[in-house]
Amino acid sequence: MESGDDNGGVPTYHRMGMSNQEFRSAAKDMIEFVVNYYESMRGKQAHPSVTPGYMKELLPENAPETAEKWEDVFRDLDKIAVTGLTHWQSSRFFAFFPCGTSYPSILADILIDCCSCIGFTWSSSPACTELEPIVMDWLAKAIGLPKAFIYDGKGPGCGVIQGTASEATIMTVLAARTKTLKKLAEKYPERSQHDLLSKLVAYCSEYSHSSVERACLIAMVNLQKVPVDADISVRGAALKEIMDRDRAEGKFPFYVCATLGTTDCVSFDNLVEIAEQCDEDMWIHVDAAYAGASFLCPEYRNFMKGVEMVTSFNFNPHKWMSVNFDFSALWVKNSSDLINSFNLNPVYLRHENQHASIDYRHWQIPLGRRFRSLKLWFVMRLYGIENMRRKIREDIQHAKTLESFVLADNRFQVCFPVHLGLVCFRMVLPHSSDIQETNELNRRLLQHIVDSKDIYMVGSEVHGRYFLRLSTGSVACDHSAVESAWKTVQKHASALVNEI
Amino acid sequence: MESGDDNGGVPTYHRMGMSNQEFRSAAKDMIEFVVNYYESMRGKQAHPSVTPGYMKELLPENAPETAEKWEDVFRDLDKIAVTGLTHWQSSRFFAFFPCGTSYPSILADILIDCCSCIGFTWSSSPACTELEPIVMDWLAKAIGLPKAFIYDGKGPGCGVIQGTASEATIMTVLAARTKTLKKLAEKYPERSQHDLLSKLVAYCSEYSHSSVERACLIAMVNLQKVPVDADISVRGAALKEIMDRDRAEGKFPFYVCATLGTTDCVSFDNLVEIAEQCDEDMWIHVDAAYAGASFLCPEYRNFMKGVEMVTSFNFNPHKWMSVNFDFSALWVKNSSDLINSFNLNPVYLRHENQHASIDYRHWQIPLGRRFRSLKLWFVMRLYGIENMRRKIREDIQHAKTLESFVLADNRFQVCFPVHLGLVCFRMVLPHSSDIQETNELNRRLLQHIVDSKDIYMVGSEVHGRYFLRLSTGSVACDHSAVESAWKTVQKHASALVNEI
Repeated sequence: MESGDDNGGVPTYHRMGMSNQEFRSAAKDMIEFVVNYYESMRGKQAHPSVTPGYMKELLPENAPETAEKWEDVFRDLDKIAVTGLTHWQSSRFFAFFPCGTSYPSILADILIDCCSCIGFTWSSSPACTELEPIVMDWLAKAIGLPKAFIYDGKGPGCGVIQGTASEATIMTVLAARTKTLKKLAEKYPERSQHDLLSKLVAYCSEYSHSSVERACLIAMVNLQKVPVDADISVRGAALKEIMDRDRAEGKFPFYVCATLGTTDCVSFDNLVEIAEQCDEDMWIHVDAAYAGASFLCPEYRNFMKGVEMVTSFNFNPHKWMSVNFDFSALWVKNSSDLINSFNLNPVYLRHENQHASIDYRHWQIPLGRRFRSLKLWFVMRLYGIENMRRKIREDIQHAKTLESFVLADNRFQVCFPVHLGLVCFRMVLPHSSDIQETNELNRRLLQHIVDSKDIYMVGSEVHGRYFLRLSTGSVACDHSAVESAWKTVQKHASALVNEI
Repeated sequence: MESGDDNGGVPTYHRMGMSNQEFRSAAKDMIEFVVNYYESMRGKQAHPSVTPGYMKELLPENAPETAEKWEDVFRDLDKIAVTGLTHWQSSRFFAFFPCGTSYPSILADILIDCCSCIGFTWSSSPACTELEPIVMDWLAKAIGLPKAFIYDGKGPGCGVIQGTASEATIMTVLAARTKTLKKLAEKYPERSQHDLLSKLVAYCSEYSHSSVERACLIAMVNLQKVPVDADISVRGAALKEIMDRDRAEGKFPFYVCATLGTTDCVSFDNLVEIAEQCDEDMWIHVDAAYAGASFLCPEYRNFMKGVEMVTSFNFNPHKWMSVNFDFSALWVKNSSDLINSFNLNPVYLRHENQHASIDYRHWQIPLGRRFRSLKLWFVMRLYGIENMRRKIREDIQHAKTLESFVLADNRFQVCFPVHLGLVCFRMVLPHSSDIQETNELNRRLLQHIVDSKDIYMVGSEVHGRYFLRLSTGSVACDHSAVESAWKTVQKHASALVNEI
């Protein structure tokens, strides 16, 4: 790498890692790589044929002392990185939930990196702070959230971008903890903060995301799992029973996480009934990480009935709304609840406008923040809401198609209603209803499928019953992809039956 | 937006938000935007002339129902977003610490978005998990960390990418809390977990980053600020005194955060002396968020003398090492300490290779994670270590140049030794040594400078003395930039003196 300026302007050559001309050329390679990557996703093996430790052999033990050529790095992409990727956008990927990506979102991320500002205060980059509540208002309105969550230039309701739903859960648990401890300290001035802390109880179901448990471990509060009904839904009476018991034992219920669209089987807790059991001292948080995107379509909003009564609401546009990870949307009715969880204000971060504007650093666990609202801005404008709805409806249609395939094959049963883009099914044994035996059969079926690399999917377990999950929504997911996927499942099931 | 496939392949047109051809064309616009952006950074006004709320007028209240054209979105970039940006890469930006960016890092981020995998387990994307310990080993060796922090395919030492230094601090506080409570529960089986928690004490100085305080608020542990010496450094004796006092009061010291390169003035705690005061029950965390990058140059490694005795070490390549935000590098000597802080393992995340590989989801607060190691891989290969060192040395030289300017003007004094790329200075009053009067003068000086928009910088306060900070390191920072910056300061100082 040579010294000196590139073209008389900024000394980009060494301060930017390559010259402008090299960057233009490399970026062109990269953009073609992106287009070819997505074009190759139809029929692409989704789960790679590598074993743990494969990469160590392929790379030197030290970083290079002198700069390498772009050509060499670019050549290594396929050989070293892509070969070990799980292709989440493949037509043969049905695992987990979908992971958002799109051309508009990729373009926005180029801009985010270009600006390379860290928006921890308004002053550190005003545009970064200003765009966020505006596009979060756009999104809130697009999914039909009540007015109480809209900022509209003043609050107290407001949206904030978190990295992941886990962080949204942690933030709300911490905020609820602070708020509750403050109240309890007034009521019980003789008791220590840690004694009161030991009596706080949060609630969720066994089928809530593991991040609720993690949040409670971090906050050092008790977590009670509320039993669910036959539809894997938390109902008011079950919550009431367990809260009453806890109160009778001198504990303080303070937080409930209601899940709309569980990870295991996309079931929905009953928000209306939950809210009816909660007084104003309870923080009701909604985790709609996956399902939230479906509320773009009015026909699915019945699943969030009661949302006007909750304290906070979260979903992940980075799952099913074509926004690249990480982008989790959290709204609260009263932003001061969040801000007060840990508002610290050292001198080097003070600025003139700190009372006239939002300082999002108080709304999240890290201090620094990327200009992530640009991703949502680009995606919503370049898709338009109607096209975002269209993708959701298509993916749900694909799941309905899969469901019809399962129903048409009497070796299988559909385990849960197909509400959105997930189909949960299992093989049934013709001559046995033994749970362990059936579970074992389905575990073997999944292992056969995953080992074959035909398609990639995962299993799960609810009420002790193991089942397989087919989740639609990758970029290359279409009708023929779900047809092939089902034929794959049938093929492995037949082979398995022959083995028995 | 029309229906149907783009070119017979993947139905990119609506599932990717635009056609391949539109993406190619838009990406070309965006790449030119990036090149022009950096080219414009020489002499660019760093802090924007907007007031809080400026953007609300410029945007509609709702997202568009139908897709907008790229041309319209692209046109809005300047008008709406760039106009309100703080230009961290401008030659007139000297605030905070530098924020990393580079062409290689931007290219890597395009790839990260393209893959759009979420690497929460090895299986969810093997390449994402495999590259991370390898490049973290590269980086550890490049900055001269001891072998105990190197993974080398087996551990127990290992690196992990966190979003920010704040998250690294929180993770280590939580891990130390878990480890300590486990030990204490064995020793004091009759005492409750929350009672023991109330006796835990963490330590740092008043000049440690605010994130230590935030981490302790989250963990609900006590934090004691250790008094610093005249060099704003925590010394062993001061730490010992306060720990002894706490122990005598029945408290349990469990964690100390040593800062290498404080945010206020880039001072360094004395690691050797701190480590000498700590037994194996203490977790010693090093926060070298800014200064860590300087250890690429052997001549600055004396500042981390004693690092072989610490438990964990963190610095931010996204600050001064040309990697785009967010990328914070954390190393621990014993990864099981981190993992055990909250290892949860639900069925839908279990996979065959979970014992043969690292599952980084247990190493961090969120579950999901971007393929961020690609950024470091690209940056280290396309720069080469020698060019990364060169940037560090240049920026330090620019700070030394600024220091010489301050020293040559008797209206000013340099407040702290210029160890790296930060110069702290203040005006002195010719006929008064009153602290408040001098502070007020310097606050007014900063306000004049910031209001003028000539350059952007911030002030800080140490031991009650207010001063101004000039931090070098933006992409466009060079000798003429620091010359101009100093003339700007002098100009405003003269105007201020004439006012008095």
